[in-house]
Amino acid sequence: MTYRVVCAQNQRSPYRPAGNVAQEDAVLSTMQDVPLLISRILTHGSAIHGTSQVTTWTGEGEPHRRSYAEIGARAAQLAHALRDDLGVTGDERVATLMWNNAEHVEAYFAIPSMGAVLHTLNLRLPAEQLVWIVNHAADRVILVNGSLIPLLAPLLPHLKTVEHVVVSGPGDRSALANATARVHEYEELLAGQPVAYDWPELDERAAAAMCYTSGTTGDPKGVVYSHRSIYLHSMQVNMAQSMGLTDEDTSLVVVPQFHVNAWGLPHATFMTGVNMLMPDRFLQPAPLAEMIEGEKPTHAAAVPTIWQGLLAELTAKPRDVSSLTQVTIGGSACPPSLMEAFDQLGMRVCHAWGMTETSPLGTIARPPAGAVGTDAEFAYRLTQGRFPAGVEARLTGPGGERLPWDGESAGELEVRGAWIAFCFSTTAPTPSRCAPPTSSARTAG
Amino acid sequence: MTYRVVCAQNQRSPYRPAGNVAQEDAVLSTMQDVPLLISRILTHGSAIHGTSQVTTWTGEGEPHRRSYAEIGARAAQLAHALRDDLGVTGDERVATLMWNNAEHVEAYFAIPSMGAVLHTLNLRLPAEQLVWIVNHAADRVILVNGSLIPLLAPLLPHLKTVEHVVVSGPGDRSALANATARVHEYEELLAGQPVAYDWPELDERAAAAMCYTSGTTGDPKGVVYSHRSIYLHSMQVNMAQSMGLTDEDTSLVVVPQFHVNAWGLPHATFMTGVNMLMPDRFLQPAPLAEMIEGEKPTHAAAVPTIWQGLLAELTAKPRDVSSLTQVTIGGSACPPSLMEAFDQLGMRVCHAWGMTETSPLGTIARPPAGAVGTDAEFAYRLTQGRFPAGVEARLTGPGGERLPWDGESAGELEVRGAWIAFCFSTTAPTPSRCAPPTSSARTAG
Repeated sequence: MTYRVVCAQNQRSPYRPAGNVAQEDAVLSTMQDVPLLISRILTHGSAIHGTSQVTTWTGEGEPHRRSYAEIGARAAQLAHALRDDLGVTGDERVATLMWNNAEHVEAYFAIPSMGAVLHTLNLRLPAEQLVWIVNHAADRVILVNGSLIPLLAPLLPHLKTVEHVVVSGPGDRSALANATARVHEYEELLAGQPVAYDWPELDERAAAAMCYTSGTTGDPKGVVYSHRSIYLHSMQVNMAQSMGLTDEDTSLVVVPQFHVNAWGLPHATFMTGVNMLMPDRFLQPAPLAEMIEGEKPTHAAAVPTIWQGLLAELTAKPRDVSSLTQVTIGGSACPPSLMEAFDQLGMRVCHAWGMTETSPLGTIARPPAGAVGTDAEFAYRLTQGRFPAGVEARLTGPGGERLPWDGESAGELEVRGAWIAFCFSTTAPTPSRCAPPTSSARTAG
Repeated sequence: MTYRVVCAQNQRSPYRPAGNVAQEDAVLSTMQDVPLLISRILTHGSAIHGTSQVTTWTGEGEPHRRSYAEIGARAAQLAHALRDDLGVTGDERVATLMWNNAEHVEAYFAIPSMGAVLHTLNLRLPAEQLVWIVNHAADRVILVNGSLIPLLAPLLPHLKTVEHVVVSGPGDRSALANATARVHEYEELLAGQPVAYDWPELDERAAAAMCYTSGTTGDPKGVVYSHRSIYLHSMQVNMAQSMGLTDEDTSLVVVPQFHVNAWGLPHATFMTGVNMLMPDRFLQPAPLAEMIEGEKPTHAAAVPTIWQGLLAELTAKPRDVSSLTQVTIGGSACPPSLMEAFDQLGMRVCHAWGMTETSPLGTIARPPAGAVGTDAEFAYRLTQGRFPAGVEARLTGPGGERLPWDGESAGELEVRGAWIAFCFSTTAPTPSRCAPPTSSARTAG
């Protein structure tokens, strides 16, 4: 078969200016302007990788399985319900107070794809911070897992902007009986809705999702991801030098979806058909060991404390965890002894560094070619690794002077890139909430 | 070590409009606007992957080796020479008539990074087409390999816009003695130039590189790649589901740099530190077999005819080619017998489909998880594979109706994506050379 380009369309995106080049007679690119949108990841994943699966642990019997094709259809249904039944319009915020599970993945795609903003709530935060955050973001809807109603119900009287609560999964609903917000069942809301949605062509720089940092100093601070930043970050996660997974892999996503978008894994996996294994609320060492043995993930992403607990569990009660060869650890440094112990189990732990403000992939410690197979390899794996092409960095001293990359100098690390935040959302949503740029992106070490 | 974002800069790119969201009180993303530029790939590759290498075959003795750090310094020198000595400004076109080698890689990065447009000339085209193309693109400078002077010299009197010819590598210069264009030696031009260049922050949609299709019907047609399209394409090539190489790999780039940017490999490899092995003019089966045995590449990219010749060579005179486990084949379908023969040598051939208008990565035939290890796997590998997330496609019938993806329907394939062309450059460079979009991107099968 031969191919021939006959003709073509240029989808002029709204952010393309009238003149995008300096000279009158400048050479124009002939490339299409296709905005990088989360809806494109959804549409691709549910069509091309329709048989890939999200498996959610249920704690009893068979885990729950849902294909990417089904997720795509249900994300469309959720978007219809949010728009047509609950009246969500424009870029209103829809919050989630949920564990890692298939419904949370549906929310991840439906909400930004329709133009609204996904706001993941960190269920580990103190009640007063959660109240502050929901009011600050002006969330209009909260999707909540039934098992988390005991956490949400006492907060509801203080959540001024929340009009709708949508409950998904098992859990006693009675605490919501007197809520002033309208309460809906997730499955009832989706039932009968169309399984396709005409996703809008958005500005790729528009807000797609937001997380608040925990606010160890002062009020929590909002980081707002764009469609563009999430799309580019997903591509980076899928690059061979980063996590480098394919549709032959299954990733055990232990890192919570309310924590920096589960390190970008739900978006990245949907982009390439990597299967997801979701622990829901079963984050204790015993069920984690069980799900690894039973579902045979090839990759996992977690913080070191979770892995420390898993090691104790596997020592006390050995399981077949041989499928799991690659573990991405972030959040804090992995103790060398833990790394060695997992090496012996055949699980290769790889450090990654990032933060809410870096989407989070800042660095990853895949040993460079020169170190592989040498004594230097293990020492390298204990570092935080190297920056990918999308993240630029420099080290500056107290007077703003540039310091050398010599492995010894200590200073402020300044980072820059298309998935790095330039400011916090510290006031109520207004177009001017971000102060004009005055200095470089800085990260203090 | 802990990190803390202190403050941050928003590099407002020139294409960002005053209001990038629909509503007055819309939520803004807090992500940095960092344009996707080829200079970023260059800066990253030469710093983070400074020890990776371009190895160029010389036909005698040791091949020539140059590190990515050296390439970075020399690309800066070339940009200084082009701007300060030859007067290249704005988006003027700088052409190359060169084989695959380290100097051609330097041109690949220096020319677009400084804001000019790299125009690769296909040395297989008939003389009259080359003349037409150079005049159409209004090339101001031509970089030429010494061995290709016999091809260039007779054309020069017809090249109206060419003011400078820069010669690199071995070859008799005497045919250029009477040229009206000024003739320079590449190495003399670079000598003494600064090894750093303050690369401009360009619009990521600006023209970066151009290729002309061979013009089987009518005049040749120009496809103009943008910085954005090349950057995104490079990320895709590096994704595990595509070529998925890392800095432990060496790619034998047989596909010419004058043919669709060598399938994007020079940009993609620099992004992640993959080493390049460049055959220069030694494209015959015997030297290719020699360089595989001697330099031990792990990956190669070529059209089937080259691989057919290599198989005959290896059958006649066996070599150790065991390093080479992954071969990307495109341009035309690989005969099943050839694929089987290479399977037996341990070289796994993978089809990729693309064209000048698709940058070229359109599809790649890595078998889906369900087919791996089954009888269906080989049959799948004979297809052209699946689309990545960045390429959307649909099949339409003669009346414009959408046809099903059933493996049987035949129609026009319409493709869309950020690295897919929307039109050809068919007239002399003017801002209006691309007609307004009227229909979808179509590729006829």
